[in-house]
Amino acid sequence: MRLPKKVTIKEVGPRDGLQNEKQSISTEDKIQWINTLTKTGLSYIEVSSFVHPKWIPQLADAATVLNKIERKPGVTYAALVPNLRGLDRALETNVDEVSVFMSASESHNLKNINKSIDETYPILEQVVREAKAAGKTVRGYVSTVIGCPYEGPVAPSQVRKVADRLFSIGIDELSLGDTIGVGVPNQVEQLLTELLPHFEVEKLAMHFHDTRGTALANIVKSLEMGITTFDSALGGLGGCPYAKGASGNVSTEDLLYMLHEMGIETGVDAQAIMKSAQLIEKILGKKLNSRQMDIVRAEEKEYLA
Amino acid sequence: MRLPKKVTIKEVGPRDGLQNEKQSISTEDKIQWINTLTKTGLSYIEVSSFVHPKWIPQLADAATVLNKIERKPGVTYAALVPNLRGLDRALETNVDEVSVFMSASESHNLKNINKSIDETYPILEQVVREAKAAGKTVRGYVSTVIGCPYEGPVAPSQVRKVADRLFSIGIDELSLGDTIGVGVPNQVEQLLTELLPHFEVEKLAMHFHDTRGTALANIVKSLEMGITTFDSALGGLGGCPYAKGASGNVSTEDLLYMLHEMGIETGVDAQAIMKSAQLIEKILGKKLNSRQMDIVRAEEKEYLA
Repeated sequence: MRLPKKVTIKEVGPRDGLQNEKQSISTEDKIQWINTLTKTGLSYIEVSSFVHPKWIPQLADAATVLNKIERKPGVTYAALVPNLRGLDRALETNVDEVSVFMSASESHNLKNINKSIDETYPILEQVVREAKAAGKTVRGYVSTVIGCPYEGPVAPSQVRKVADRLFSIGIDELSLGDTIGVGVPNQVEQLLTELLPHFEVEKLAMHFHDTRGTALANIVKSLEMGITTFDSALGGLGGCPYAKGASGNVSTEDLLYMLHEMGIETGVDAQAIMKSAQLIEKILGKKLNSRQMDIVRAEEKEYLA
Repeated sequence: MRLPKKVTIKEVGPRDGLQNEKQSISTEDKIQWINTLTKTGLSYIEVSSFVHPKWIPQLADAATVLNKIERKPGVTYAALVPNLRGLDRALETNVDEVSVFMSASESHNLKNINKSIDETYPILEQVVREAKAAGKTVRGYVSTVIGCPYEGPVAPSQVRKVADRLFSIGIDELSLGDTIGVGVPNQVEQLLTELLPHFEVEKLAMHFHDTRGTALANIVKSLEMGITTFDSALGGLGGCPYAKGASGNVSTEDLLYMLHEMGIETGVDAQAIMKSAQLIEKILGKKLNSRQMDIVRAEEKEYLA
């Protein structure tokens, strides 16, 4: 089994996770939580989103959070921006990197962004240009790379088309999202077989949701194909508002267990991650979706019994 | 990706699942549930256990359940037997196959069976001989094939030694159990690399617990190495009494989703399995551990909202 020695985990919990939480979380709680993430050894944290607060009120405090968190050298603090207005707000902060997003499937793009795929490119192009002019790196997200909740299976060639265009616009990295968590390993293989001859593997990240429990299996297939960057969220936070099912991103704790046990370095302290997961679980006041946390809960129950 | 066209799923929920449930389940409920399993297209159901009722009171009604379930031609109805006394009780029923069990690690075997590994073989040998004389096929289970809760990592060579002995004793198939769900795919690969040159792949089954969420990833690696038989339990029922953590066997529903989506045939009707899972969930009165059921619950919530 050919595996990379080291992978990079990009923590998207504060953005992709919290944006799906209905209860309002205080700015102070977010800052406190992100400060614990900074101390785990993670090199990348997606802190918030500058999507208009009308759409995601939970993240209306993006600027405050970005400006008030403790920053550690070597950690990239990123935020999502949908358009130039969002970028303007982001550039008033000390954000390191901005992320732009769109979908590989026409209907999901329309539902999520209210524009066709072709209408989306020029907007993202402007954002990328101005972000770069301001000295920021830019990450691209493409959603529904395996399946779309409206259209069903998405052709790898369609993902390649979108990826081509996004790289030509100037993004530094592309995160490929199985947004609704329908993918299985041979579909991941088909997708990467289509993409890898055309793009540098170092510039591709995989973003799996674990809706059907296949995220870790999909990550293993991605690792075998050379991918070394993965998005995940503490406690499996997240989920797509336009996707059925209860679970969100692959949980950072479970991903860390698997990678470390496979002998793959991440630079991340699994115990510090667990403490941070327990903090956000306490803040949210609900049981998070992670096997590592289930184990801790079972051990505590046994200890108390 | 080289994958088999067809795999066999062996449902162990009624035995490996229920034996870990503390609340008493009525014989009628068990029979009703197993009758729904019979109608799903499964070709193998492990119905109960003839371990002494003192140890597993939940399955004290093994004989009644075996004799009263509706039987469908082509389905193998199996039961676990620990020793000759258990076999005698099993042979009073119309069980098709019996299963014997031991551990690959000395301490787990001692804790579970109260005997050393070397003391266990002669007992199993007698059971296998008499079961075969009575016209039954025999399955062997070996536990802790990747990790032991007391000893840590288990060497593949140790598993091979136990497997060798069990096949020489006359078992027809060997189920390799990651009893505490610690395994990751490259460990599965190491194990199978050790075993496959020595045993017919058709005679090996993999039995993964999903304690750390790695079961499906381990199954994919096993599929790629040629394994075509997998144990699973509806709703992820089960767990090892001597293993920390909340979750049990890989859930049959989640396994079916992945296999079918990968284009692998199982002969099992996923919708019928879901109905059967909902029945046992209702009987147990607690939320089972399966992503497919989470999705159904989320859809129902949405429908009712």
